[in-house]
Amino acid sequence: MMDMLSLGKRAKAASRILATTPTADKNAALLAIAEALEDQKEAIFEANQEDVNEARANGLTEALIDRLTITPTRLEGIAADVRKVADLPDPVGEEYDRLTLDNGLRISKRRTPIGVLGVIYESRPNVTVDISVLALKSGNAAIMRGGKETLRSNRVLVDAIRAGLTAAALPGDVVLFVDSPDRALVTELLHMHEYVDMIIPRGGAGLHKACRENSMIPVITGGLGICHLYVDQSADLEKALPVVQNAKVQRPSVCNALDTLLVHQAVAGQFLPMVVVRLAQDGVTFKAGAEAQKIVGDLDTVEAAGPDDWDIEWLSLVLGLKVVKNLDEAIEHIQTHGTGHSDGILTQDDANATAFVDRVDSAAVYVNASTRFTDGGQFGLGAEVAISTQKLHARGPMALKELTTYKWVAIGDWHVRE
Amino acid sequence: MMDMLSLGKRAKAASRILATTPTADKNAALLAIAEALEDQKEAIFEANQEDVNEARANGLTEALIDRLTITPTRLEGIAADVRKVADLPDPVGEEYDRLTLDNGLRISKRRTPIGVLGVIYESRPNVTVDISVLALKSGNAAIMRGGKETLRSNRVLVDAIRAGLTAAALPGDVVLFVDSPDRALVTELLHMHEYVDMIIPRGGAGLHKACRENSMIPVITGGLGICHLYVDQSADLEKALPVVQNAKVQRPSVCNALDTLLVHQAVAGQFLPMVVVRLAQDGVTFKAGAEAQKIVGDLDTVEAAGPDDWDIEWLSLVLGLKVVKNLDEAIEHIQTHGTGHSDGILTQDDANATAFVDRVDSAAVYVNASTRFTDGGQFGLGAEVAISTQKLHARGPMALKELTTYKWVAIGDWHVRE
Repeated sequence: MMDMLSLGKRAKAASRILATTPTADKNAALLAIAEALEDQKEAIFEANQEDVNEARANGLTEALIDRLTITPTRLEGIAADVRKVADLPDPVGEEYDRLTLDNGLRISKRRTPIGVLGVIYESRPNVTVDISVLALKSGNAAIMRGGKETLRSNRVLVDAIRAGLTAAALPGDVVLFVDSPDRALVTELLHMHEYVDMIIPRGGAGLHKACRENSMIPVITGGLGICHLYVDQSADLEKALPVVQNAKVQRPSVCNALDTLLVHQAVAGQFLPMVVVRLAQDGVTFKAGAEAQKIVGDLDTVEAAGPDDWDIEWLSLVLGLKVVKNLDEAIEHIQTHGTGHSDGILTQDDANATAFVDRVDSAAVYVNASTRFTDGGQFGLGAEVAISTQKLHARGPMALKELTTYKWVAIGDWHVRE
Repeated sequence: MMDMLSLGKRAKAASRILATTPTADKNAALLAIAEALEDQKEAIFEANQEDVNEARANGLTEALIDRLTITPTRLEGIAADVRKVADLPDPVGEEYDRLTLDNGLRISKRRTPIGVLGVIYESRPNVTVDISVLALKSGNAAIMRGGKETLRSNRVLVDAIRAGLTAAALPGDVVLFVDSPDRALVTELLHMHEYVDMIIPRGGAGLHKACRENSMIPVITGGLGICHLYVDQSADLEKALPVVQNAKVQRPSVCNALDTLLVHQAVAGQFLPMVVVRLAQDGVTFKAGAEAQKIVGDLDTVEAAGPDDWDIEWLSLVLGLKVVKNLDEAIEHIQTHGTGHSDGILTQDDANATAFVDRVDSAAVYVNASTRFTDGGQFGLGAEVAISTQKLHARGPMALKELTTYKWVAIGDWHVRE
């Protein structure tokens, strides 16, 4: 039986040491972790193989089994990524918003780690390493709870990470792992607000909902992305087509993939057939609204959209098609059915582009680009912890800086308040 | 029976209009609100008098009755404060972190309103106006739930505010009010994550706890401030004394007032008697730890601290006194008993000042200054919505900028992801 409270206390104590650890020491630990992962590769493969065997015995799909498998190439990639994090700038310690008040009190904000992160995630074991090293680099301790399918792999990975930390003379408790599939421990984690400062769920809508409903700790919700592109009357349809195709098919299983295409009525008759023909070559099937049905409904790959279909994140080669009267109706559809993730307009009309950007309140709003760019790596952040679709703290791709907070520092000369 | 869901929908709709309302129009509405408050002053005084009469009949203390009373002078002050908010800079629309990616995609962050604020507060009716106008200026709608003692006052104040909004051709639903003392409606508010983006509790520890435990919406917790000053061995004791006095007595009922004084053992014999004699003149009584008892325990105003006394926010003229061996013990005490609000060191030793600032993880950390400065007005923010003691989103005093979030805007030239 895991003692969660004790994990919390150990993580908090480690986080206090890490908060004032110099960048060079954190980077040395990152390199030691990469080395430890390589040194312990046989143990990692062995444990992972047991997880894979059990998954296969339990009838998991090959797609899921592929997600949890650690191949030699993948482990090399994981170690290489750890070394890359050592090269990223350390956000901690930055001083900003400096101000000397009229009374002479000097105030500033100083960027500091958040403290202890609670991370709850599903099957991919590389997430265990990602989170550990991003937490370390940003000066945070992490308590991680991975999927039960990868329990053995995670155990060995965490052992290697902790070995790297201690080899670099940092506390191993910077990285702690809930070594049990017991779901009650997740609830305990969500209640430990004295020791855990932030909860990051990485997984499906159900996980995010459970965290939102049960956590007493601030949660970064996200993950769910019902993404839209609106093809304006003025769009260059030849140029719009590859953007729509990229947004839908480049990687359909992820949250920034396109779910619903909204097309202005003036160009729907021309554009919808172009879309259906081109994307059908990639295996896409379509859910069409009533007006779209009139245009492409007789094609084999097209069926009528049901009333709930606009509220589904497809995560697969399915695309909703809807004809709208104008920009207002497109925006209204996005406000009603979107999840505030990634939405874009394809247009040659600057006024419509501006109106769309002003009025669509999503984490990422695009003009003439694929929604697939919503990603820490693509946006130049060098890494990604999660994609937030809530509005507090951070929005969209979150990386090292988003794992920090600030404190006000006030330096006085024996100042008193009048 | 209030229909909370309908309030949520109305607030969300109003927030969407307000999100793109120009600064000049928001400022015009602020001036119209100030005018409406003045125009409707008779109705405001009358409703407030009924609240006061009921409070008196219910045996509320005179201190509480004073807090809920709206005098003509106070109403003038409230209207003047509304006009001041019109003069503050509008944070919405700022573009920052501009970057053109290697592929030519132009990305930036744009500051946007959060959306709908849910604000739950206790007795002072001026908070109703404060929150309304700060929400309006930052482009947010607010659903407010005030204390039951001020229900009639708040009703009339909200009527005036909404009259000001509509006089300026903005939606009255920017400001909505839960016109019922039914506590079940608070729980409903905390669950309306589809319509409410942020919960701000303003009140005691119990309110913050209830919000943390029950809310499905991100909550800004704060309010509770167990504040410390540590008097270092090197402090100039003559200069330290007025700082300690100011932190404790300048306004003892508020969250940034001093609760516990930690004194280095090398100077405790000299400093503690100075403190007790000087602050006793202000009516302060003391709770002394064992070592402090040996020094000042024979004085009438000093009694032995109980084991829980270091965890109490006094909010009154009581001060804890504790002798510590060194800086480490002072920091450890603050880590164990502090609430991450405001803590300071009084010292002439730069290395100790630096170590204290680095290691004490509070929203505001002071060197040679009173803890009483933790305040939006004092820190030059021009206003204050709340003081956050959590680490996500905003820390310490929160004003207009802290009521905003950002969206990523990406402008492409028909960009697709490789």
